[in-house]
Amino acid sequence: MLKLPHHQVAGHQAGNGKLGPLIDDSGRFYKPLQGDERGSNEVAFYTSFSSNTRIPDHIRRFFPTFHGTQLVEASDGSGLLPHLVLGDLTVGRVNPSIMDIKIGSRTWPPQASEDYIEKCLKKDRKTSTILLGFRLSGLEFYSQKEPGYWKPGRKSVQNLSPEGVKLVLRNFVSSNTTNELEKKPDCSFASIVYGGSTGILSQLLELKAWFEDQTIYHFHSCSIHMMFEKELALEGKNPRAEIKLIDFAHVVEGQGVIDHNFLGGLCSLIKFISEVLTTPDDCPVEVSSNDAKKNRIHPENGVHLH
Amino acid sequence: MLKLPHHQVAGHQAGNGKLGPLIDDSGRFYKPLQGDERGSNEVAFYTSFSSNTRIPDHIRRFFPTFHGTQLVEASDGSGLLPHLVLGDLTVGRVNPSIMDIKIGSRTWPPQASEDYIEKCLKKDRKTSTILLGFRLSGLEFYSQKEPGYWKPGRKSVQNLSPEGVKLVLRNFVSSNTTNELEKKPDCSFASIVYGGSTGILSQLLELKAWFEDQTIYHFHSCSIHMMFEKELALEGKNPRAEIKLIDFAHVVEGQGVIDHNFLGGLCSLIKFISEVLTTPDDCPVEVSSNDAKKNRIHPENGVHLH
Repeated sequence: MLKLPHHQVAGHQAGNGKLGPLIDDSGRFYKPLQGDERGSNEVAFYTSFSSNTRIPDHIRRFFPTFHGTQLVEASDGSGLLPHLVLGDLTVGRVNPSIMDIKIGSRTWPPQASEDYIEKCLKKDRKTSTILLGFRLSGLEFYSQKEPGYWKPGRKSVQNLSPEGVKLVLRNFVSSNTTNELEKKPDCSFASIVYGGSTGILSQLLELKAWFEDQTIYHFHSCSIHMMFEKELALEGKNPRAEIKLIDFAHVVEGQGVIDHNFLGGLCSLIKFISEVLTTPDDCPVEVSSNDAKKNRIHPENGVHLH
Repeated sequence: MLKLPHHQVAGHQAGNGKLGPLIDDSGRFYKPLQGDERGSNEVAFYTSFSSNTRIPDHIRRFFPTFHGTQLVEASDGSGLLPHLVLGDLTVGRVNPSIMDIKIGSRTWPPQASEDYIEKCLKKDRKTSTILLGFRLSGLEFYSQKEPGYWKPGRKSVQNLSPEGVKLVLRNFVSSNTTNELEKKPDCSFASIVYGGSTGILSQLLELKAWFEDQTIYHFHSCSIHMMFEKELALEGKNPRAEIKLIDFAHVVEGQGVIDHNFLGGLCSLIKFISEVLTTPDDCPVEVSSNDAKKNRIHPENGVHLH
């Protein structure tokens, strides 16, 4: 009855005897509970969030539907295991293009163990997280019937330079992307996917307004899942652009403080996407690897001692 | 000719044979150049900033005036040393109340040395920086002729809990603060110091709008200096509330990315100050020390397995 998801771009993946999420035919997504604190913490978040009356409806729609937890046959054949039961984000979608972006320049909660903090910090510094305030964590771009999807390796997208990220964000909304990153993406769907009153930018701005105010939760290592249907766009129809927040294993209470870490990264992403909309023809010239040593300030005028 | 500043609340302080900044009678502030990279980097920033035509005037006013560098007699008697020459922020001010706030949940630039990163990270975790996105780094509240100023130890203000910070921000704009933190501050100057079209909140919001867009500089370990004159407020006059950015030894180039770290911290501070304005009578009940272990999510409903 349960099967492998078609459109998972990040996280643990089931298949070949591995433990990962499953879906059913009724639009539900089964995510195995990680055995350590992460699993129970994610259930605690969904339980708290789903019963929290302070969450406005226009924000709640950015979160997956929560159907509790359930014991189901694990994908790795290890028997019955507890799973989170969520709404399947891609149900009813035809050939969606998907991008997962892990938000925040810090992916660890302050109260995590020293080992965990060290591991996260190392990765945050190695990837684009510290510089950008986010990192691409997985993507799957539909091009057309042949070759189908372009799905680059996760490692290659995690540590892109700012120029590299700009290029990916442009390719996401281009009609001429095939099975690799197009250096001259046409950005022909930018205005209907990113722009407009129901586009991705508008949704991100709604989320931003909430994050400027909410002090309930701090979302460490949480991702924004973006999706639209290119074939609808090609037919001149609404491409059903949609964002969702996913992955709440490291959410903690806000203690009366806004989630400045998530908010900062979100604003950085908003700036990148705004730039695609304002300068759709202005493609990055060169995609260099991220070299952090480069950016000391070198003013034209040197130091003058009088 | 040069003398000790009257109103320095943070940073190295001159006096007793120590090296620190000096002022003169013409409104200039002399900051000794730190011998290592920090000194040259701060000069590089001021030089770059002062000649950068992309900085709008309404933003430039938030920065100290830069008069170059100059060799002057150092305060520690070590002879002539190069100093940054800046506008003295407190010139013409009568008994100003001052608060310095170091902005950002990360105080280290990505390209710093491992030793420096480790040192900063340790301090960021020990103080309120990681949780709040900023930390109070020094303050000096004028109360009245007697006892004059309340100037608590820097260490005591750096690691305040969110409730502690709320209390300090309320005391800053209260008439009943004397020589200690008043548990029931009256917030009687909140609306004229924080509020209004020329108040501190309005200035912070202008700065925020710039930080949502600018990708020129990343301001690590930079502080916001806030100031107003209580005696003017008591006389019903405009209390000359003003913010300035200070301390640019760790500014680096933005590489086409917004300064999400500064922006996040700034938004957190804005939220705290907005709360004083919207609920001036709603004082924090208890000022506990910052206990990061407390904030795992504990929903009322536990985990249910079906």
